[in-house]
Amino acid sequence: MAERQIIKIAIDAMGGDSAPDMVIEGVSRALKMHQDIEFMLFGDQAKINPLLEKYPNLKGKCELIHTKDYVRNEDKPTVALRNRTSSMRMAVDSVRDKKTDCVVSAGNTGAYMAMAKVFLKTTDGVSRPAIAGTFPTKKGTSVVMDLGANVSCDADNLVEFAVMGKIYAREVIGVDNPSIGLLNIGEEEMKGNANVQGAAQILRRAKKTINFYGFVEGDDLFKGTTDVIITDGFTGNAALKSAEGFARFMTDLLKEAFKENWLTKLGYLLLRRPMEAVKQRLNPKVHNGAILIGLGGIAIKSHGGADGEGFSYAINVARNMVSHKLNKQISETLQKLHEEVVESQE
Amino acid sequence: MAERQIIKIAIDAMGGDSAPDMVIEGVSRALKMHQDIEFMLFGDQAKINPLLEKYPNLKGKCELIHTKDYVRNEDKPTVALRNRTSSMRMAVDSVRDKKTDCVVSAGNTGAYMAMAKVFLKTTDGVSRPAIAGTFPTKKGTSVVMDLGANVSCDADNLVEFAVMGKIYAREVIGVDNPSIGLLNIGEEEMKGNANVQGAAQILRRAKKTINFYGFVEGDDLFKGTTDVIITDGFTGNAALKSAEGFARFMTDLLKEAFKENWLTKLGYLLLRRPMEAVKQRLNPKVHNGAILIGLGGIAIKSHGGADGEGFSYAINVARNMVSHKLNKQISETLQKLHEEVVESQE
Repeated sequence: MAERQIIKIAIDAMGGDSAPDMVIEGVSRALKMHQDIEFMLFGDQAKINPLLEKYPNLKGKCELIHTKDYVRNEDKPTVALRNRTSSMRMAVDSVRDKKTDCVVSAGNTGAYMAMAKVFLKTTDGVSRPAIAGTFPTKKGTSVVMDLGANVSCDADNLVEFAVMGKIYAREVIGVDNPSIGLLNIGEEEMKGNANVQGAAQILRRAKKTINFYGFVEGDDLFKGTTDVIITDGFTGNAALKSAEGFARFMTDLLKEAFKENWLTKLGYLLLRRPMEAVKQRLNPKVHNGAILIGLGGIAIKSHGGADGEGFSYAINVARNMVSHKLNKQISETLQKLHEEVVESQE
Repeated sequence: MAERQIIKIAIDAMGGDSAPDMVIEGVSRALKMHQDIEFMLFGDQAKINPLLEKYPNLKGKCELIHTKDYVRNEDKPTVALRNRTSSMRMAVDSVRDKKTDCVVSAGNTGAYMAMAKVFLKTTDGVSRPAIAGTFPTKKGTSVVMDLGANVSCDADNLVEFAVMGKIYAREVIGVDNPSIGLLNIGEEEMKGNANVQGAAQILRRAKKTINFYGFVEGDDLFKGTTDVIITDGFTGNAALKSAEGFARFMTDLLKEAFKENWLTKLGYLLLRRPMEAVKQRLNPKVHNGAILIGLGGIAIKSHGGADGEGFSYAINVARNMVSHKLNKQISETLQKLHEEVVESQE
């Protein structure tokens, strides 16, 4: 490319627990990382204008669209969907109308997912979008999807997720020829329900398109056995939250134990730095930016409790997805997979 | 009861990584805890007779049935099922033939589950047995089922699990009026697939029989939100293994971090005792004895890697299930629940 293309990112400036402050901070941080991005901010100008003053690097890079309303965390998705004047809705609409290339919000997850699905539809060849997330593993990072967008998934859905996961891992995480595992309750070929059995059968026939490892189990999520792990949204959500719950439980138990007496307190003091490093490694902030992948446009959900740094990671993911033409690659790869499966049957 | 009844326990003495040594040690330990139990041991007499000498308290309490064969860990369940001369098969058969009241094995899980299902059938009113396990939580212990016996479960299966979980928590764990949660991907009433929705609808109508809390999520597994958590075997298995995998990952990271330099090594030394206590709290040994519940007879699976102490816990669970007439109570409670649901519809 001779001329560098500018990526225009729509921002729901009012979504998130500490919005709009952390949002604008996140935008400023993202601008320090990338020269090829510009922003269209949707939000209350009375609150946002003073923040724009605070971060001089935003000058000339942000267009502010005043919105008189925003989606609250307690709002029902069905209600939020119909309000055309909220910052979230107007930000999503700007992607649909091709005024921006992607959208980032830390607001009400249910409402955002509903809007993205309804207004952005799905990309060519994909029947249902899925939530992808990145997990820290012994070997680095793995992509897991679906984390909750679809409560039940048939074999074709799972195969589509495999393609989306492959492209995401390759283009956004930077993994060469990512290996794909299918979550099951055992590694034996005969195990599992009809959906995982059916998906495995298709993926085994598409060896040229998909680097299919086979079945993996729940503990493989953190082992890094494969670069991508595919499952239905019900199981993925339960597995993710179960691990999160265990982490909190174990951390609480350790904290309590360390307070026992002055010797244990001294021990804790000596170990604080390495334990901080471990916490950082497991830090969900770095892994912020769970995304609804497979949409007709790019919509990234930042964690509601994210700070400016966390929000900038979500922006980063959005930018990478646009610059790597994720959707086009997903559609093309799905097409290839279908052709390969048909050929293998002939 | 004027006369104390003796509970006769069948033991697969050849199952488990350190069998028969740890099995016989476990039997000896169990006999020290309970006066109302006796054993029928199935295994190789050449190996077991010397062990019986080693533990004098076994004298007069154990009948040894010599078996010339045993199930290996790598044996296929379908093959193991057909061999009538293995220690595992003969132990299971003794329950079917009412020669013993229950069976405990630490051998090949798949083979054992298959034998238990095929030869013991299900108890009255139960269409499918499920694997129940106990999880450590902030508040104590919770019962989670199904952990992998059924890859897909309809609403009626989940309702049966709720009844089995209630009786298990009350009789074996000792929880008064146990609360029951249904695992879902959100706490809102409208979320989830048709199976969890259907089960919730039935359970809400049976308020007198079941203390139904409503939906819970993956992180509630370790919070102790409810005494019992019900889910299908696919999701339960993934959630359990995901938490186990995370625990191992976090422990490995911490261990590495503690070795960094002499100061962190000193810190680790000071914290070793409280950290051991935390490990003990999360110890799967105490939580040994995952059981296939709902069978026409009682069959307890001990962890394959269990030591004598762990195996004695599994025996303990088996004994409690028999002495509390678990199966009779499950059938009666299921009957009550069906009557209450029918009444509520009239």
